[in-house]
Order: sequence, then structure tokens, then C-alpha cells
Amino acid sequence: MAGNSFGHLFRLTSFGESHGRALGGVIDGCPAGIVLDLEKIQLELNRRKPGQSAIVTQRKEPDTVEIYSGIFEGKTTGTPIGFAIHNTNQKSKDYSHIKDSYRPSHADYVYDKKYGFRDYRGGGRSSARETASRVVAGAIAKQFLGNIKITAFVSQVGEMKLDKDYADLDFSKIEANPVRCPDMEMAKKMEDYIKSIKKEGDTIGGVITCVIQNVPIGLGEPVFDKLHAELGKAMLSINAVKGFEYGSGFDGVLMKGSEHNDKFNADGTTKTNRSGGIQGGISNGMDIYFNIAFKPVATVLQSYETINKEGEKVTTHGKGRHDPCVVPRAVPIVEAMAALVLADFTLLSKTNKI
Amino acid sequence: MAGNSFGHLFRLTSFGESHGRALGGVIDGCPAGIVLDLEKIQLELNRRKPGQSAIVTQRKEPDTVEIYSGIFEGKTTGTPIGFAIHNTNQKSKDYSHIKDSYRPSHADYVYDKKYGFRDYRGGGRSSARETASRVVAGAIAKQFLGNIKITAFVSQVGEMKLDKDYADLDFSKIEANPVRCPDMEMAKKMEDYIKSIKKEGDTIGGVITCVIQNVPIGLGEPVFDKLHAELGKAMLSINAVKGFEYGSGFDGVLMKGSEHNDKFNADGTTKTNRSGGIQGGISNGMDIYFNIAFKPVATVLQSYETINKEGEKVTTHGKGRHDPCVVPRAVPIVEAMAALVLADFTLLSKTNKI
Amino acid sequence: MAGNSFGHLFRLTSFGESHGRALGGVIDGCPAGIVLDLEKIQLELNRRKPGQSAIVTQRKEPDTVEIYSGIFEGKTTGTPIGFAIHNTNQKSKDYSHIKDSYRPSHADYVYDKKYGFRDYRGGGRSSARETASRVVAGAIAKQFLGNIKITAFVSQVGEMKLDKDYADLDFSKIEANPVRCPDMEMAKKMEDYIKSIKKEGDTIGGVITCVIQNVPIGLGEPVFDKLHAELGKAMLSINAVKGFEYGSGFDGVLMKGSEHNDKFNADGTTKTNRSGGIQGGISNGMDIYFNIAFKPVATVLQSYETINKEGEKVTTHGKGRHDPCVVPRAVPIVEAMAALVLADFTLLSKTNKI
Amino acid sequence: MAGNSFGHLFRLTSFGESHGRALGGVIDGCPAGIVLDLEKIQLELNRRKPGQSAIVTQRKEPDTVEIYSGIFEGKTTGTPIGFAIHNTNQKSKDYSHIKDSYRPSHADYVYDKKYGFRDYRGGGRSSARETASRVVAGAIAKQFLGNIKITAFVSQVGEMKLDKDYADLDFSKIEANPVRCPDMEMAKKMEDYIKSIKKEGDTIGGVITCVIQNVPIGLGEPVFDKLHAELGKAMLSINAVKGFEYGSGFDGVLMKGSEHNDKFNADGTTKTNRSGGIQGGISNGMDIYFNIAFKPVATVLQSYETINKEGEKVTTHGKGRHDPCVVPRAVPIVEAMAALVLADFTLLSKTNKI
Repeated sequence: MAGNSFGHLFRLTSFGESHGRALGGVIDGCPAGIVLDLEKIQLELNRRKPGQSAIVTQRKEPDTVEIYSGIFEGKTTGTPIGFAIHNTNQKSKDYSHIKDSYRPSHADYVYDKKYGFRDYRGGGRSSARETASRVVAGAIAKQFLGNIKITAFVSQVGEMKLDKDYADLDFSKIEANPVRCPDMEMAKKMEDYIKSIKKEGDTIGGVITCVIQNVPIGLGEPVFDKLHAELGKAMLSINAVKGFEYGSGFDGVLMKGSEHNDKFNADGTTKTNRSGGIQGGISNGMDIYFNIAFKPVATVLQSYETINKEGEKVTTHGKGRHDPCVVPRAVPIVEAMAALVLADFTLLSKTNKI
Repeated sequence: MAGNSFGHLFRLTSFGESHGRALGGVIDGCPAGIVLDLEKIQLELNRRKPGQSAIVTQRKEPDTVEIYSGIFEGKTTGTPIGFAIHNTNQKSKDYSHIKDSYRPSHADYVYDKKYGFRDYRGGGRSSARETASRVVAGAIAKQFLGNIKITAFVSQVGEMKLDKDYADLDFSKIEANPVRCPDMEMAKKMEDYIKSIKKEGDTIGGVITCVIQNVPIGLGEPVFDKLHAELGKAMLSINAVKGFEYGSGFDGVLMKGSEHNDKFNADGTTKTNRSGGIQGGISNGMDIYFNIAFKPVATVLQSYETINKEGEKVTTHGKGRHDPCVVPRAVPIVEAMAALVLADFTLLSKTNKI
Repeated sequence: MAGNSFGHLFRLTSFGESHGRALGGVIDGCPAGIVLDLEKIQLELNRRKPGQSAIVTQRKEPDTVEIYSGIFEGKTTGTPIGFAIHNTNQKSKDYSHIKDSYRPSHADYVYDKKYGFRDYRGGGRSSARETASRVVAGAIAKQFLGNIKITAFVSQVGEMKLDKDYADLDFSKIEANPVRCPDMEMAKKMEDYIKSIKKEGDTIGGVITCVIQNVPIGLGEPVFDKLHAELGKAMLSINAVKGFEYGSGFDGVLMKGSEHNDKFNADGTTKTNRSGGIQGGISNGMDIYFNIAFKPVATVLQSYETINKEGEKVTTHGKGRHDPCVVPRAVPIVEAMAALVLADFTLLSKTNKI
Repeated sequence: MAGNSFGHLFRLTSFGESHGRALGGVIDGCPAGIVLDLEKIQLELNRRKPGQSAIVTQRKEPDTVEIYSGIFEGKTTGTPIGFAIHNTNQKSKDYSHIKDSYRPSHADYVYDKKYGFRDYRGGGRSSARETASRVVAGAIAKQFLGNIKITAFVSQVGEMKLDKDYADLDFSKIEANPVRCPDMEMAKKMEDYIKSIKKEGDTIGGVITCVIQNVPIGLGEPVFDKLHAELGKAMLSINAVKGFEYGSGFDGVLMKGSEHNDKFNADGTTKTNRSGGIQGGISNGMDIYFNIAFKPVATVLQSYETINKEGEKVTTHGKGRHDPCVVPRAVPIVEAMAALVLADFTLLSKTNKI
């Protein structure tokens, strides 16, 4: 209820603050008998890890996951998988610039109002550090999903937009550049742009596109728990996300029904896919694809005016090592959340009919 | 789990198909002691009702709600509120054009695959008729919310877009025209456009904008159940929705952090509101606002080719009385879903601190 | 959360007060494709109905169920099954004896304290009338369960106790007498005893025993949601229940491990069944059996002293048509709740392993 | 859903097997601002710990809890409390006697059938070692509950039964003897009896009684989630429990309504308390009390015949260090589960009325 669990049948419950002893979680409902490659879990974490390139935060966090339960002789046992990632970088720092004042467009102010006080060492629970637990759970969900292929990539940074259909992109290039854009030329431009933004002490927004292939027909529920509604919630729960659209999305608004409708082929596939692989909330076997809008990171390394707890004006200066653009490191998080949604609905779909 | 419940503490469970005997629902968790104006519930239903103007479907459904329980001497009792809306228009019709063939961009095909068969009389459970139950529950939630003011309106139909800040609009005009656009001039253009689309037997998409005012600080949970994530899920669960954005939304992508950040006033309000009234998933007391993209209705009154259950090509022709544009009637549904989300988080917020 | 839903995957949400317009519910998660015999549902309701014999309440309630959705061409569709039972007997009565005073060992007092006021016409939501919805849902669950056989019967009324192993009883006799005790001789004694209690204007307690046969191995979850824990909760949620024991139960306390342990046969069955068909919370394929203790009904048709809202002593006299002993009519309720628990775990068991 | 979470608003999700790296859990929904005494948590764990006296298992497990999150400057922050207890005693042992054969009245057999295989090192997830996580969460719940006083004690071991009303007992003696029976004379007899049972290599059952005092009026929900139904589920979810009764319990069956009813005092308290502090599922402010039946531990240190995976007869001999009687160490577990139930309903009760 307090919102630290995601999913119903395949469910992650996460814990941990940015500057606490450890963060981690429990995955409940993972079926027994999945042969788990533990290295793949760590590899996903490494994709999210700070310090991996010049255009992301330079903080040093090894992000090594320890798995405590639920796996035996290389396979899941059907019992809950508990795990933790210890924070190694907990040195006592000077938090005076955020302890008593509220950073603009951060959660500091609302935490104090909601809970009466807050853990002021960094973002606490609202830090994107929390997403490490999602990546662990998502990496396990991916292995459960087997053949279903989830691919996210950066399709826009500021005004630089990759205007190609995803079918024309070479997904093997995504990990070949630090931006995680599958078009190497565009990736280079984006990278240079992020570097220039960083030099200004500023930040910039971006868009991640995600494509899910080999989806079986029948995932998702007809009314409130439509497949795209859960995907939307999953993506909107990621820090800094401001929008979600799937299939034709906001552009679909402009179309007439006669052009928007996806005509059937004889085998039940469709000639076009404006629906984005989902009809009435249920997967139809076509590719699912969606876009996620990320705002610019709120922490800018510039001077700014704000208020303190007493409502007095104070001038302060952002510090620390922060991402100038969040999208390159958010790619594995998007994939993880998509995997969690699909794992949940995959289990649920086993109960649809006798 | 099968997705016919929405909310946790203030929870609607709905039932009913478009052509069954009745649809309705149960609202569980509504606190005791709310003085309920039952007429207001019916008025909200009337806003959603078919046949209310020339630009919506001309079907005749009285949509009269009967409340079975949970109210005594004009007040909620704290026990579940059961209600039903009887379908009066169940005459046996000729369904042969949809019984054996699959309408493009409808849920017919996926229902057959998911459940093994389907109720082929109309859209069954995937019909927008199901949203009547949401409107009833939302109307009760609105009365619980008291001072919180939820206002939705049509801001775009096809390419006709209302490019004004919501603060410059006169909300009292929304119900003064059949499109539910608060700008009377634009409303007339949209109305004419929808009529011309209808004449073609075609349909067109649109955008609804929703503004929520007088929101207390502290609604929403920090991680998975962020306020905007639940709002997003709620909106994406409405039929025909393809996208959701709040605050700066997809445009926020283009901005730098230094311009996007909302600077504080001394009283904790902010000078700008690009955040859209939510920080870190928690309401900050500023207005919440968001946009919802609706695709064009899939049923076009034209001839089209499709396939039957055997995968053979068939040519058929759309018939019946359908909406040429879904957004005018979707306005009360958007408000209802927003009310359900806020009612749920309002109850939950009572448990945040000792 | 407000406790009007039972089950997770196969879930009943119920509504309705004893003197409201209707009571009913929604069954969500019932799989598609079950051929439903609607008469069987009504037959189960008739087993619970008032006025069926001289030893139960003589109220007249037809208890006719109307099903609103979720069934098409005789089969479940996988969508929610909404239903209602209209209260035909809502004539305005004189409630002055309960409106302002609190009946001892009823919920009147706690309702007023919890909710601020209450529906004082009869027991409102705490009336056993609410269990009619459970019987409808249970009757559907039974048909889903197919081969699993659930049999409840009265094994004790006051001090009259049926001291036979259930294996030595003829279950076909249960419905052959108004007490629902499978031993006709004991049944007659119990019947006479209940009649004498009724003549005194008094009431008496009893025990129902339930046996579940043909249970597949593997239902139930290892930790909090043990099969017997959910069965226990289900039974304890029935009005007037004070205790639950399964397998060896309270008598198991007296035994040594060496005598209590159930030794295996070669085929995995066990020579004895003190475990009651459940090991570590999971069904082992042996018969499940349990006992449920019911206190005497609180409404006695005698004079008694109590207090009013102002805390003043008042003398009043019980009236109305009440059951002198609740167990005969509770038999179908026990079976219904057991069926709901098993249906839920049957669905969940489909997700245990890959 | 897979049953490793308990509670709704105050919710424990637990993980960990008896012989894995660690066990632990996440407490979600604990309100912010509770001043936590961490030593009290460890003290509760010590009450459950093996090796604390001559009549319990002599295994050595320090059971030291590490708290990873959710606490800052000595107070709960409102964010999830993650914790772990590392297993220090994981040395590789000889499991051949349980790896391939099924111990009678253990969960070995059903695990293999349900999940396809099992972690055969000890009881895995069905080991009572799992309850350590419950004790941690319960110790935090107790501190949240403040004035509500939960006291459990041993009231029966085998045939030795403490036949006194709890009001006549001196609760301060409970921790003064290894059995945790508040009557020192009876405690000594029970202790001697358990020692003699242990000498035989056998085990014996027992009963724990629990009393909850200073309960506010209004906890519990009227229908499925009655306060005693959740308490019953909580207790039945503890290993080895076979029965639960509250208030008059199974003895209430023998009474007439006229004697069973609890007459009111002018202040709303009752002269007697056969109801056990709960009316219609809702606390009435009187003491809540209930009994829990525990069967004898299944592991006996004797030779026994059983079957192996192939269904062949094998003769084996119980080994290891096991409890001859489970009730002394189960006392803190009972209290912990009661605390979790009350914490959950305490939060929920904040949402009952406007």
C-alpha cells in the first residue's frame, strides 16, 4: 500500500535509501525451476552503474548484488528471492546545503510535509539509486521471460531526435556507444551535446523508446489492468519521467479511424501496427513499442535561490556528481520495469481459462 | 488480479458487458459519514450518456443508476456501496457481421485467443459502456474529496488544438457546448469538424486536458505508486487512450534543468509549475495538470476487409451508432478516474505518520 | 482493504445490508469456459434460506439470485460475474428497540463507535444475511473445482456430539434431516433439543465439521498463506464462529511426535491422517478435515437489561424470527467458503513452477 | 500472492531459508516518526533464539538483526524497513538422510510435488527459522502500538493444563522460567515433563494463550477481515499450529445464548467477556484473548520407516538438535503476529470515517 511493491503475482518489494547501509528487495512469486545466470544480473546492474562513461555521474558505487535466498543449485526454488546491494560510499559528508533548505524541483519539501521530517543525506528514498533494486528484479524477470525480447534505447536528447522507425535501426549498436542510441552518428551528436550541457553545469531531458518482441497473444487484462496501463504506470514510476505514449501515441490523435485501424493478415497479424501490439489492453502478438519522456535532472551545478525550512530565502549552489542527462543510464531501468510487467501478466495469463 | 478492481483503500470493483443484463460495481472503503447527493451521481452519468448531442453516438441508454447498499439516511455508512445500471436496450440483434469475423483494431481477436471464446454481442467487457460504472464511483469520490476541484476538458480534436494555458480559460464554458472545450470559438470549429468526419462515416482522435486544484500536500507514494504513475495508469485504462503526460510532459524533454526547475516562493508554492503539482511522486500543493491522447474510434461506418475465425478474408461494413470522436463523452470519465486516484491517496495519506 | 473482498485470484467482493434494497457481489478472476449450471447456484442458496424447516428462523426471504454479467451461452467468459439478491421483505418496521439501545453481544455498539453511526434496521452489514453472497460465489467455485468434493455437516449441538470418525458416516443422509447431521438417530435428538431450546426463547451453539476430498497435491503457500491458515480465516469470518481446528486439532496437543506423525505408504499417501491433508501449509492429497465452533445466537426472545446511547440502563425484549441454533443453515456457508479458498489456490498453483 | 507478505497497510514481506545465506524481510507502511528502540528488537529475537535453555533446541544461531533502511536519527522515516539476519551456521553437512527420502509429517514431499524440486538442506522455507523475520517485524509493530499490551504464555503442555483464568495469573513470571508459563509451580512440572520427553527422543504438543489489553474500540472489519479472522490466520500461519479459538471458543458451543451474552455496563464495557473483546469482527475495548494449539514437533530422534523419491521403503533415524516442545520458543512469535495484525488494523481504522 505504501507503494514499495510492484506487481501482483511476480512481485518486487524494494527497500533502501541512497545513503543508508544497503538497498535491496524481495522478489515473491518467481516460479520454481528457472535456471538463473547470476552474471547476467550483475551485467544489467553494470549498465545502470554510475561512472561508466564520461557523460554520466562520476560517483563510484560498485553496486554488487548479494542474493540471500530463493535459489538452490542454480535454479529458482519458488520461494522469495531476497537480495541486497550494500552502499560502500556512506562517508559522512557535509549536507548543510540540503539539510535545512529545499532544492527546487526535488522531493525535499514534500517529504518534510508528508512525513514530518526526512533523511536529508541525499535524496533518500526518492533518489534514483533506488532503481538498482528494480534492475536486479528485472534481470531475473528477463530470464523467466525467455524468448520475449525487450530492447530500450535513447531516441531523443533535447532537440536531437532520432526520426527513424525502430525497424530500421540496428539494435546491436545500442551498447556500442555511451548514449545508448542505436544510430552511431546520432549517438555521437547526442554525446557531444550532453558534454557541452555538462560543461555549463546544466542538464537536459530526453526520450527512451522501448520495443518488446515475441510477445505471446493474451497478456493484459481488459479493464483497469490493461497491459499498456501497467506499462505506463511502470514507466511513470521511474524518476524524472513526465510522459508515456504507446503505438501511435500523441500522433494518433491526428488520424482518422479509417487510416489508424490495423488491417488483418490471414494469420491474425496486422499489416500496420499503430495499435502498438495491444488491443483492448491485451497483447495481440505484434511488437509492443512505446516512448517515455524524461525531464532534465533537477540538480544543476549552478547557484540558485531557494527557501529554507523557515521560509526564508537562501542562495546555494548545487554540488556533487550528478548526471547531466538521465536517459543513457535509464535504459536498463526501462527494460527492467517492462520485464516486471510482462512477467506478472505471463503468470496471470495461466489462470484465464480452464 | 483479473483487473476489474481499481484503487486500494477506496476501491471500485466493476462488472458488466455492453449487452448483458446490467453493469455496475461495488465501492469498498468509502468512509462513513459523507453526505451524498444522489442527483449529482446521476448528473455525472448524464454527461457520459449516449445521445446527448449531435456529435456523439445516437444510441438510447437511459443509464439510470440504482444504489443497493452502503447509504443510510443520506450518508455513507462505511460499508460497501453496491450499484447497478440495467441495460434496457438488449434486443436481440443481428451480430453476424462481428460474431465470426474480427473487426480491425478491436479486441475481438485477442478475446478469442485469451479466453477461448467471447461474448460477441458488441464489445462485451471491452466496450466503453463499462466506463459508466467508473463515472458512478467517481461521482461519489468527488463528493468525498470536497474542496479538491477536478476539471477536464477537450483541448484538441484532430489537428485543432487549443493553444492556451489553462489559467487563461473559462472553465464555466466547458458544459456550454457539446464538445466540452472551454473556448467557445474553438469549440464551434471542433464541433463542425466532428460533424464533417461523421458524415464521412469516419472517426477522429483528440486530447483531453485535466486540471486538479486545491490538492493538499503529501498525496502519493515515493516509489512505485507515485501520484502521477497512478494517474497515468488510471487514464491509460480508459478505452482508446494512447498517451499520458503531466506537467511539462514531452515538451519538458527539450528543456535544460536550469529553466525547467520550479523556484520556490517563501510560502512553499513555486513561481512556475513545470512539475505539474507533483515532486518525487508526491503532491506539492500546486495545480496538477495532464494531457491524455485518444486515438480515433475503431468502428468506422465504411466497408473494410478483414478475416474470420478461419483466417479467411471477408468484406464487411461497419454499422451501428458510434461516436465519431470519443473525447466529448470521455471528459466525465477522465474526471471520475482522477477522483478515484485522489480519494485512494487521500485515505492512504492518513497513515503516513504517527 | 475494508474487508469486503475474499480471495486473490478467484475473488468475491460482496455488498449489501440485511434491510437494504439488495445484496450481492462480484466474482472476479473466475476462468473462462466453465459450463455453469445456474440451478445449482439457486439450490445452494435454498440450503441457506430461512424458513426451510421448523428449527430455523421463520422469516420469508425468497433469496432469488439474478446474475448480471460474466456468463454467455451457458459458460463463464472470464469477465467478472456480477449478481444481486433483492430484499423483498423491506417493510418499514418498528426498530425502536434497537435504534437507540445496544443489544448485548451484537455489533451495534462497535458500529456506532467505529463509523459514527449505523444502519439500525436489523444487523445491517453484520447480519448473517450477508452470507447469501458467499453461497452464490461458493456455488460457482464448486463448479470450477470439478472433482474436488466438499462436504460439511453438523457434528455437535450443545452437548450432543457425534463421536464418529467421518469415514464411518453416510454423507447422503446430511440433507435427509433438518439439522444436517449425517447420523439420523443423532440428528433426531439434536432436532428435538433445538426445538426445546426454541421453546425457551433461547439459543444454543454447535460445531460443523467439513471434509474435502480429492484434493490435488500442492495447494497452499508455505509461509503466511498456508492452506489451513486461509481456511481458518475463511471459517472465522462466518458470523458466530469462535474456533477452528484441523487435522488432530486441539487433541493433537496431547500427543507425542512419534504417535502423531503420519507414516508414508509407497504411493505417497499416508497410513494415518492426523495432519488433516496439509503439510507445511500445502495439501498432500489426503482428505482435508476441520471443525468449526459456533457460539449460540445472541438474539434471545427474552427480556434483558442493556444500555442506550446515553449509557442509561434500559430493559428490552428480543423479538423477531431468529435461528435458535445457527449450524443447520451454516452448513452451505462453510462449504461455500471452503470452495472459495480452494478455487483461489487452484488458480495460484498454476503459477508455481515453469 | 505467493504468500510471503503479511498485512495490508503495515506489511511484512519475508524471505530466507533455514540454510541459505540470510533471512530477513521488508516492512512497508510503517508510519514515520516512531522512536524505535533497536535493542528491544534484538531482545525479542533472543526470546525466540535456539539454545536459550535446556528444554529447547541446542543449535547455535546468534540471530543478530541488521537493519538496512527506513530509520534515521532513531526514528522511522515512513520508508520501507529492510533487514537481514545472516545465517552463520551454514557449514556443509550430511543431508543424505533427508535429500532423497521424505520425513513423515514434514513438508519435504509436498515441496517436491509442488515446485518440482526442493532445497533439501533442512526445512528450507518451511523451517520455523523463517519466523525470526516475523519477530523482528512484530517488535517494531509493538513499538508502534504503544499502549496496547500483548502477552502470550504457555498454558498447556501435553496433558498438563493451566486451568486458571488469565486474570488470576502473574504475567511477570512468564519470563522467569524456561517454559514461559506464568504459574511457577505448573511451569516446573511442564519443564520436567518436557525433559523426560526429550530423553525419549520424542516431542510433545502444547497450547499458547495470548491476551491483548488496552485495545481501542473499532479495530477490525465487519465481513471477511474480521479482527479474529485475521488473528486466526496469523496464528494458523505459524509452524505446527493446528487450532485457534478466541473468547469462549469451543466451550462456547455448549452454552445457551442467554448465558453466553455479555451484558453491558453503563460505560460500554461488559460484565463478562465471553466474546473475547470482539463483536461482529470489531474490537469492543475489552481484553482480547485466544488459545492456539500446537502439535508435537515432527522430528523425533528415533528410528522410523519412510519412503524415498522412488517410493521405496527406507529406514532412517532422526538427527540434529530439535525442540522437544515448540511452545516455549513460540511465545514471542505469537506476540509478534498479534502485533502485526493490530498494527495493520490500527492504520486501517484511520480511514473508517470522515
